[in-house]
Amino acid sequence: MPIPAPNLYPPFNIVRLSHVDFAVTDLTASRAFYVDTLGLQVTDESDAAIYLRAMEERGHHCLVLRKADAAHAGALSFKVFDEDQLDRAHDWFAGRGHAVRWVERPYQGRTLATHDCFGMPIEFYFRMDRLPPIHQSYALYRGVKPLRIDHFNVFSPDVDKAVGFYNEIGFRVTEYTEDEESKRLWAAWTHRKGGVHDIAFTNGLGPRLHHTAFWVPTPLNIIDLLDLMSTTGYVANIERGPGRHGISNAFFLYILDPDGHRIEIYCSDYQTVDPDLEAIKWDLKDPQRQTLWGAPAPRSWFELGSVFDGVEPVASGLGASPIIAP
Amino acid sequence: MPIPAPNLYPPFNIVRLSHVDFAVTDLTASRAFYVDTLGLQVTDESDAAIYLRAMEERGHHCLVLRKADAAHAGALSFKVFDEDQLDRAHDWFAGRGHAVRWVERPYQGRTLATHDCFGMPIEFYFRMDRLPPIHQSYALYRGVKPLRIDHFNVFSPDVDKAVGFYNEIGFRVTEYTEDEESKRLWAAWTHRKGGVHDIAFTNGLGPRLHHTAFWVPTPLNIIDLLDLMSTTGYVANIERGPGRHGISNAFFLYILDPDGHRIEIYCSDYQTVDPDLEAIKWDLKDPQRQTLWGAPAPRSWFELGSVFDGVEPVASGLGASPIIAP
Amino acid sequence: MPIPAPNLYPPFNIVRLSHVDFAVTDLTASRAFYVDTLGLQVTDESDAAIYLRAMEERGHHCLVLRKADAAHAGALSFKVFDEDQLDRAHDWFAGRGHAVRWVERPYQGRTLATHDCFGMPIEFYFRMDRLPPIHQSYALYRGVKPLRIDHFNVFSPDVDKAVGFYNEIGFRVTEYTEDEESKRLWAAWTHRKGGVHDIAFTNGLGPRLHHTAFWVPTPLNIIDLLDLMSTTGYVANIERGPGRHGISNAFFLYILDPDGHRIEIYCSDYQTVDPDLEAIKWDLKDPQRQTLWGAPAPRSWFELGSVFDGVEPVASGLGASPIIAP
Amino acid sequence: MPIPAPNLYPPFNIVRLSHVDFAVTDLTASRAFYVDTLGLQVTDESDAAIYLRAMEERGHHCLVLRKADAAHAGALSFKVFDEDQLDRAHDWFAGRGHAVRWVERPYQGRTLATHDCFGMPIEFYFRMDRLPPIHQSYALYRGVKPLRIDHFNVFSPDVDKAVGFYNEIGFRVTEYTEDEESKRLWAAWTHRKGGVHDIAFTNGLGPRLHHTAFWVPTPLNIIDLLDLMSTTGYVANIERGPGRHGISNAFFLYILDPDGHRIEIYCSDYQTVDPDLEAIKWDLKDPQRQTLWGAPAPRSWFELGSVFDGVEPVASGLGASPIIAP
Repeated sequence: MPIPAPNLYPPFNIVRLSHVDFAVTDLTASRAFYVDTLGLQVTDESDAAIYLRAMEERGHHCLVLRKADAAHAGALSFKVFDEDQLDRAHDWFAGRGHAVRWVERPYQGRTLATHDCFGMPIEFYFRMDRLPPIHQSYALYRGVKPLRIDHFNVFSPDVDKAVGFYNEIGFRVTEYTEDEESKRLWAAWTHRKGGVHDIAFTNGLGPRLHHTAFWVPTPLNIIDLLDLMSTTGYVANIERGPGRHGISNAFFLYILDPDGHRIEIYCSDYQTVDPDLEAIKWDLKDPQRQTLWGAPAPRSWFELGSVFDGVEPVASGLGASPIIAP
Repeated sequence: MPIPAPNLYPPFNIVRLSHVDFAVTDLTASRAFYVDTLGLQVTDESDAAIYLRAMEERGHHCLVLRKADAAHAGALSFKVFDEDQLDRAHDWFAGRGHAVRWVERPYQGRTLATHDCFGMPIEFYFRMDRLPPIHQSYALYRGVKPLRIDHFNVFSPDVDKAVGFYNEIGFRVTEYTEDEESKRLWAAWTHRKGGVHDIAFTNGLGPRLHHTAFWVPTPLNIIDLLDLMSTTGYVANIERGPGRHGISNAFFLYILDPDGHRIEIYCSDYQTVDPDLEAIKWDLKDPQRQTLWGAPAPRSWFELGSVFDGVEPVASGLGASPIIAP
Repeated sequence: MPIPAPNLYPPFNIVRLSHVDFAVTDLTASRAFYVDTLGLQVTDESDAAIYLRAMEERGHHCLVLRKADAAHAGALSFKVFDEDQLDRAHDWFAGRGHAVRWVERPYQGRTLATHDCFGMPIEFYFRMDRLPPIHQSYALYRGVKPLRIDHFNVFSPDVDKAVGFYNEIGFRVTEYTEDEESKRLWAAWTHRKGGVHDIAFTNGLGPRLHHTAFWVPTPLNIIDLLDLMSTTGYVANIERGPGRHGISNAFFLYILDPDGHRIEIYCSDYQTVDPDLEAIKWDLKDPQRQTLWGAPAPRSWFELGSVFDGVEPVASGLGASPIIAP
Repeated sequence: MPIPAPNLYPPFNIVRLSHVDFAVTDLTASRAFYVDTLGLQVTDESDAAIYLRAMEERGHHCLVLRKADAAHAGALSFKVFDEDQLDRAHDWFAGRGHAVRWVERPYQGRTLATHDCFGMPIEFYFRMDRLPPIHQSYALYRGVKPLRIDHFNVFSPDVDKAVGFYNEIGFRVTEYTEDEESKRLWAAWTHRKGGVHDIAFTNGLGPRLHHTAFWVPTPLNIIDLLDLMSTTGYVANIERGPGRHGISNAFFLYILDPDGHRIEIYCSDYQTVDPDLEAIKWDLKDPQRQTLWGAPAPRSWFELGSVFDGVEPVASGLGASPIIAP
């Protein structure tokens, strides 16, 4: 099934991915990981939750850690272009029979909670408390020097369906992997903000959150993080990398937080603002699509993901991932 | 005069800056500079012109070098979102009394030639020949590893007027310098594509093209270029840097091509897609706005620029630049 | 068995490792690998051999490729402090019953050929043709920008014996791995020139050459090489890395040449000139000694090595390597 | 006057430069500079003095800050190869009529205090308290990530005489600048430890300490320091750079501590262990010897230096530095 033509005039205007909530079992341990090790900045914290932003962000938060009895992922949140887009989104989702609610979120204006075609919780807002710039407060930089949240990657039981749904609301495919035999999509990368992706989809038991990525300045910052993690008790949290993805051309590292939520540290993709940008197709049998340099990903990387609160994942009809043996 | 509120629903949709023409006096010398030294890729060449693209670009050209008797700058070109935007642009400019022409440009579709509020030639197109990706053809990378054209910077005799004009057609201000006494704008950075700028304006004899910038992966690539230029006969073409701009936070280097056209090599600015992004204001008296690390720019940097063919520059009412003595 | 006290007044003064000969089966393929891909400079070539130097070296060669029917390693060569040291070396080896010969080597002065305690061929010389500096000829830099040969690593059937022998001739241990049960050395790193090693020994079927290392400026040059190799047909030649060694703290990459000779690309070790530098001890059971970041080495890395011409390797009494499963 | 042939068998064996004392007027301000900003590690501190080491050093100190009423430099200290060398040094200096004293220095063994041919205080020791390695304690790295002290640079009223003196005690010239007219040395770089220099001499009012250099991993660490200093109140302490020296090929930055003691941050020179290494000659009229990329040094860099306690500097007969106007 070919990828659909980009929908250049979607029903409402999403600017970019914005933030995610993680339910975590130990806020102290999570703080040590995200703040002391990665270098995210605390913008609010209590016994119940910690709000974090990255160094070049002016919105109040890109990650919310909430104390809970069990780890899971909360909604994936997106910023829209203005208040009016919220009403348009509301009507579009409601018109398709998706449950829609206006919810209260601290530090945010009007927020629409709904779900995607697989029941995955997603939220939309326009207004968030704006904070003074700190990207030139170099004394605050720590760890991997995270600059901004970059993208979500989710396991999807039907990537063709996922791409169809997100394409309707304006996400444009930049790269994709096709199973040459079934001609079905195995994975796809889609964007709104002009990079390789705001959200990507990988075939598998889903919906589950595969990872959340943060953009950093250079590969050397990722090397610094590896040195720091491996000498401060986090060596077992290093899952995959460093390496270069064939897809997206990004330099990457995958790490696991204390509850197993996967974080990608990411730099070096490319600009995708051209509306006529041709999506790049990769063959599922080409191992360089995953790691340009050839090193295989570990099995855990293909299997583990964060379940969304209250959403039962469904197996994919395409079967398990073609794991390349090392 | 305060900067205007961003015009979020402009009369037509410009995606990004696209390319520029340079009239040059010696194509061989220019080729040695842009191709052999900087590392741009030739996509077409003849005795009359050389077309170049950067490594991650899929459009046919971002820079056109044309043989001429005297050096000057040609039109600054911008890509619009679709064909329909060209007609909207045509009508908008015509309705304001700007001369408009449909012109033929090799490798481009329908192209609208007009001029801005100072008579500076600008062109708009949607369709350009698309070329296969080469960003992963690492054997082709050379010199500074230029990834894409990033922005134009022009001398303007009235920056308030420039910002007013470009704001009307959707360019949003990200940072600006104000003269605290006159309350007039000294300089402004405006964008369409989600970075700090597609086009910036600096007070001075204008319109003249101050520089054209290319984005590169890391500061180390800029150091590589400095080492290469300084040992291959180009030491006198190094004008300013390397350094970090206060404004934009970019790591920069300014160099001059064989005809004196100024090129900035640039990395590390930040994402600006939020429609409610607050512009950052700098005081004209703060030397760190220019170089965060304190080193002054040389006098030539404040004075030299490329004249646009057939456009007589006009002096600014604000007088000369406050050059900081080294 | 404890490591021996450093022999600070050895019988003759070795300055540093100098070069190695590789018998290769296809000079054209080897040239594409070492010259076009790694970036070593050709200082002489014929149908029979290619002589290479790295960018900051002034001696004529650090690597000699010789056309042969089968791949093997030739002698490991070392530079001594002056001519007089050659006679001292001659007498010391002869006095211990090692075969000694004065041999002719192109571009070298008087050269002593002998063998170590396992029959591994080693050679000593003082004088080699000196070439003009090219470290500031930046137009010549290519590939990984190799600056100098850094060290040899050899499989040894008895590392205690190897350390004892090389210690006598002045090599000082900087780091070592001990098998906590047998209290025998598993591996040791020894130096003359003030870095972590000129020659290292690893337990295994030996003597065989495990790898030859080249020093490069920064980890980013190694990333550049990975990008280049993986897109020019060399992805299968990437064996291990990039990563950080626990031992030596170096950032490393292991690659295989077209005949299977292993090359390490290496940067970031530390200065070891202090005669009272304490050797650092690692436990064989600590996986971080090999890769600080935790990723295991592939099985091939523990098993493959280049046989020395005419020298039959002997199994180690300590058994096979403790390969950590991925 | 040609540079002398290297003295390969000097009267005593100096291993490397080791440390320097700075008299400073405000220990708190100096601590903020050296510890919080540069990232040196405190190994002892009191109201009177702070002892510091860099990240890969195992000796107790490479810099001692002493509270004093006025800033000046104390002795330049060197480590010798063993205890016996101290007695040899004692006799050599005494035999030449230099005042010699055995002095007590905290954390050091027997220490010989004497002076060079210009009365500049120098000290020699073999034994210093050894500390556990911290180069892999990545959580401790801060600021510019200083790895080790690299060299001293001193103003000398007669560089020919300085080179003659230091050559006698084994320092070998790696690069030098000659005044083509007078055929006298303008500057010279001399080493013991196998890099471009342990101590360098520049023509000028002397003896005065021009700067003390620290080695860092990569140019990006220097960029990090510039960003940090320029946003934490130290912008005026940035004197020159970043840049590449022609001489030594090093990437450099010069900064001033709160008392005006000059520190160079330095990486990327080359290995010089070959006893037959040819010194590289530069012409005093070649501006690229100072900055390969062409940018001139500020006047202060040619004029300011730290006076040694109780040593009256003497003007050079060669006159003032040929300062290149920016």
